[in-house]
Amino acid sequence: MRATKQTKRGGRLDARIEVTLVIASKLTHPAAELTVLLRAAKSRRSFMSHQVHQACIDACNECADACDRCSTACLQEQDVQMMAKCIALDMDCAAICRLAAGFMARNSEFARQVCKLCAEVCRACGEECGKHQMEHCQACSKACLLCANECTKMAG
Amino acid sequence: MRATKQTKRGGRLDARIEVTLVIASKLTHPAAELTVLLRAAKSRRSFMSHQVHQACIDACNECADACDRCSTACLQEQDVQMMAKCIALDMDCAAICRLAAGFMARNSEFARQVCKLCAEVCRACGEECGKHQMEHCQACSKACLLCANECTKMAG
Amino acid sequence: MRATKQTKRGGRLDARIEVTLVIASKLTHPAAELTVLLRAAKSRRSFMSHQVHQACIDACNECADACDRCSTACLQEQDVQMMAKCIALDMDCAAICRLAAGFMARNSEFARQVCKLCAEVCRACGEECGKHQMEHCQACSKACLLCANECTKMAG
Amino acid sequence: MRATKQTKRGGRLDARIEVTLVIASKLTHPAAELTVLLRAAKSRRSFMSHQVHQACIDACNECADACDRCSTACLQEQDVQMMAKCIALDMDCAAICRLAAGFMARNSEFARQVCKLCAEVCRACGEECGKHQMEHCQACSKACLLCANECTKMAG
Repeated sequence: MRATKQTKRGGRLDARIEVTLVIASKLTHPAAELTVLLRAAKSRRSFMSHQVHQACIDACNECADACDRCSTACLQEQDVQMMAKCIALDMDCAAICRLAAGFMARNSEFARQVCKLCAEVCRACGEECGKHQMEHCQACSKACLLCANECTKMAG
Repeated sequence: MRATKQTKRGGRLDARIEVTLVIASKLTHPAAELTVLLRAAKSRRSFMSHQVHQACIDACNECADACDRCSTACLQEQDVQMMAKCIALDMDCAAICRLAAGFMARNSEFARQVCKLCAEVCRACGEECGKHQMEHCQACSKACLLCANECTKMAG
Repeated sequence: MRATKQTKRGGRLDARIEVTLVIASKLTHPAAELTVLLRAAKSRRSFMSHQVHQACIDACNECADACDRCSTACLQEQDVQMMAKCIALDMDCAAICRLAAGFMARNSEFARQVCKLCAEVCRACGEECGKHQMEHCQACSKACLLCANECTKMAG
Repeated sequence: MRATKQTKRGGRLDARIEVTLVIASKLTHPAAELTVLLRAAKSRRSFMSHQVHQACIDACNECADACDRCSTACLQEQDVQMMAKCIALDMDCAAICRLAAGFMARNSEFARQVCKLCAEVCRACGEECGKHQMEHCQACSKACLLCANECTKMAG
């Protein structure tokens, strides 16, 4: 929902850039002023366009938090040994999810590739957590699989 | 709102732990079974209790994203030199916000201290961004100051 | 050089594990004791084996530091606008290099894939930095290209 | 040793900046050219000066790696439950060490404060690891205590 709203704002932005260009074409010193306007529009466009990634950024942040919570709760379980793989994957998944959120928010040229790899880690972590019945593992598994989906979409 | 809901769940949890202990006291082999139940309760309590930090975790994630967006948009402004301090603080702020979110989600014994320092960085970044009229700087400034408030509360 | 030393230690370790197994085979309660010994050996082996990644971990840490230094120095250049792409890539590269160092040190099952992507980011950053004559850009470019090589080897 | 070398280079840099200023004072258009030279000198000085932090950056990187190795090896120990606190502190310590390395390499105005807190986390982790006789815990404890020292010096 949040993403849809952002996409609309992105649409409005494109309209605003067109208007800007029409105005720009009527200026007395078009060359210099156009450069200024175009850079400003590019900055705004960039600021807006990566709000389009919002759904995936949110999923990454939520997944990282769920993984961090899960690892701490796993460490307090009766049988920690059984949770060892889960804890290790939680660490990997939290780390790459936070990285992916940053790459998307910075609109990095590598955002898609980071998301593609992030989806793989999320899937592995979600599957491992899904094997355990504890609330924290089930919550984490759900967050991981949602995030894997969003990241796969992002990776295109 | 999300935090309030979580606090309530925390309250319900405490009740559930008490019930657990009453049941435990009636078991035939209380010593061993109590240990198991207490560890399970501790794991659940930990899982629940740091959902209480949710408002601050959310503020940190949103602030980190706003800073990352702001630095990218600043780099595309006409006068990048004017934005240099803003970009440098955006980098610091995004990094420490993501760290703080992790410490809180892991319910670390150092979460309060990390949040105290995070609040300082957020305040500095929020003030610097607040000096610039661009939409990305104003949005970032707002996210930083909100996060500084939440982190100050967390640091207690 | 450091890596070679570690590899040798890895070799010695294998010998030690074999000796352990020979001793284990002469124990009175082989089944239970063997499990204990095997887990200890696995823990030691894991601890040692990812020291084999040392050359790549060192390259990632040095590259991350060089990128962080470069972005700060770029922000203080006379013509910051010219450095915008360099700064953006420095941020990406520092972030993924630190992530890769962590994945390798934790001997993660995803270490190779993270290194493969890290190599790509390093290469892009090294090429961009290489276009600028400032000492910080040249130093960063060198560190990035060295790291790209190590990561490519790791990714196998 | 590496830090001493860097400090000397820092000394040489100061001399070079002075020479630059003497030359600058003899230029035909001193005002404009001085600005250019001063910015270049500032950029170089910044690039050099945070190489002075090198010893602490190296200690942070080595500590983060040791913590990451230790947590993985702990998860493969026979009695993982006994290692739970160690694993949790390893995660905190690795995360804040990598953050501190970044703040120092970027010559952030918050580098000292981050190092002060980092020293505390390192000390806690070093003490916990020091209680366990396994090679990975002893190696980690040593790296943590060294890093705590370097960070305390940095924090001044």
